[in-house]
Amino acid sequence: MDIDDLAKRVVAGERRALARAITLVESGRADHRANAARLLDAVGATGREALRIGLSGTPGVGKSTFIEAFGMFLIKQGLKVAVLAVDPSSARSGGSILGDKTRMERLSRETSAFIRPSPSQTQLGGVARRSREAVALCEAAGFDVVLIETVGVGQSETMVAGMADLFLLLLAPAGGDELQGVKRGIMEMADLILVNKADGELRDTAQRTRADYSGALRLLRKRPQDPEGFPKALLVSALTQDGLPEAWDAMRELAEWRREQGHWAANRAAQARHWFAEELRAGLIARLERDPKIRAMAERLDARVAAGEMSPTAAAEHLLATLDE
Amino acid sequence: MDIDDLAKRVVAGERRALARAITLVESGRADHRANAARLLDAVGATGREALRIGLSGTPGVGKSTFIEAFGMFLIKQGLKVAVLAVDPSSARSGGSILGDKTRMERLSRETSAFIRPSPSQTQLGGVARRSREAVALCEAAGFDVVLIETVGVGQSETMVAGMADLFLLLLAPAGGDELQGVKRGIMEMADLILVNKADGELRDTAQRTRADYSGALRLLRKRPQDPEGFPKALLVSALTQDGLPEAWDAMRELAEWRREQGHWAANRAAQARHWFAEELRAGLIARLERDPKIRAMAERLDARVAAGEMSPTAAAEHLLATLDE
Repeated sequence: MDIDDLAKRVVAGERRALARAITLVESGRADHRANAARLLDAVGATGREALRIGLSGTPGVGKSTFIEAFGMFLIKQGLKVAVLAVDPSSARSGGSILGDKTRMERLSRETSAFIRPSPSQTQLGGVARRSREAVALCEAAGFDVVLIETVGVGQSETMVAGMADLFLLLLAPAGGDELQGVKRGIMEMADLILVNKADGELRDTAQRTRADYSGALRLLRKRPQDPEGFPKALLVSALTQDGLPEAWDAMRELAEWRREQGHWAANRAAQARHWFAEELRAGLIARLERDPKIRAMAERLDARVAAGEMSPTAAAEHLLATLDE
Repeated sequence: MDIDDLAKRVVAGERRALARAITLVESGRADHRANAARLLDAVGATGREALRIGLSGTPGVGKSTFIEAFGMFLIKQGLKVAVLAVDPSSARSGGSILGDKTRMERLSRETSAFIRPSPSQTQLGGVARRSREAVALCEAAGFDVVLIETVGVGQSETMVAGMADLFLLLLAPAGGDELQGVKRGIMEMADLILVNKADGELRDTAQRTRADYSGALRLLRKRPQDPEGFPKALLVSALTQDGLPEAWDAMRELAEWRREQGHWAANRAAQARHWFAEELRAGLIARLERDPKIRAMAERLDARVAAGEMSPTAAAEHLLATLDE
């Protein structure tokens, strides 16, 4: 594979090259990994920076409809939009390739839009690494906004927040006792809470939901990376498009403030260093696992630790001592 | 050092042996680490299980006063109580050995109580590993309750929650606009929120604060490890001791339910496996860092990654390739 040529075509904005590049970084094969590293370095030189927006929402909140409406809104502003899905559970359901295209029919037909479903890998760590690299490729390909969508499964939000500049939480209107069930800890990450379906009969309920979450956000400590008034809860309607300009204004305000204050660059540098350390750890573990004897020993020790027969410390010491022999 | 003898004396409940054992696990020296692993395995055979309670609270909430009052309450029930502090920032302030003893004067004089300040190590990971091992030692020494206290600094709550069976969040009463500033994400971990100082003039304010947090907790999704009505917010007063029996009842109810449902054992097994993996990762990184050439290379790569000159993937590939040479 001619990596330099592929890199050039990605940077030139060729959609097919971008799709091929993402397929490359999604591969777990050792030779592909080395090529992926070369490719990422080659495209990294563009210095292009997209606004990376992480997005999560509970099922039934209308996330696809929102992404389609918000994506179309951004395209009308003359922006190029990439949508990446991160769904660690997709391995089980066999991926959602068809699903992603059909559920955002209009957006998928736009030349300024690029939609990519979640890679279907079982390991959360694997999905994380590949997704982060796909984001970097979309950025190098000249997209202005990269939306990274995730489902509320396990640690996937933390992972997506770790590769985004902003994090949005999409909620449905819910009155009184119909509780929302926001996953604990997701409020920690949200820069903006958007209450969707603020239209028709649900408008009043949406307003009350927004007020409830505004109250809950006020009980949390202000983070240094937040200007006055953030994080905040806003109303949107993917159906009528009401609230989309205001939500976009809030995102831009936040992004601009963070750029001016240096939080943007500091966050990106911290994310990159974190990913370097993660890649290194994963690589070291992978090197170990290549040895079937070590691998079998690790599995035996893991079972003994889980059963309480051996302390984690002793098990690790034991395995590490074997390596030094 | 005679590790088997030390283990025996820890299990026999000798306080001085316990203190010495904790000093051993806190040491970073390689030969001490090997001895610590042997010691932990030797004492692990008792099968004793304490209730491990993690506790965090914002500064000024009266945490020491609460721990003293709650500790004395538990001792009056005939229980043995160990208090361990986990403060990753203590390295900077030179440790808080004197502080811990003087701020819990009554409790520190009780023979059924054992108080141990935070180890003063700079690395958060190091503090975590040593603290977890100290918890295991207290458990083997026959303590019924191990309170693991932390300050609201960085990731220390996550770390403490990772070694506890229950997690308490202590808050001060705050009315209307005087916001609490609970660190985002801590609500995720709290099994019980205790609003302290529910006495005298602050009683009404405390009641409103409790109601606010009850409302906020209801907006979060129920976790599988929570019975009906949990997590909940309760009122306590370290000063008058009001609410302490109710708080203890709630902890016991929660612990019992989790035992019956299997969550307790599953949680402990998951924690042990997690710590095994962490120890292994830390050990692998430590092995790398022993080589000054590798270490220098990692530092150079880290700086380039932070500056955006190199992708995290390429940097990790580069370092790992060097190892395989």
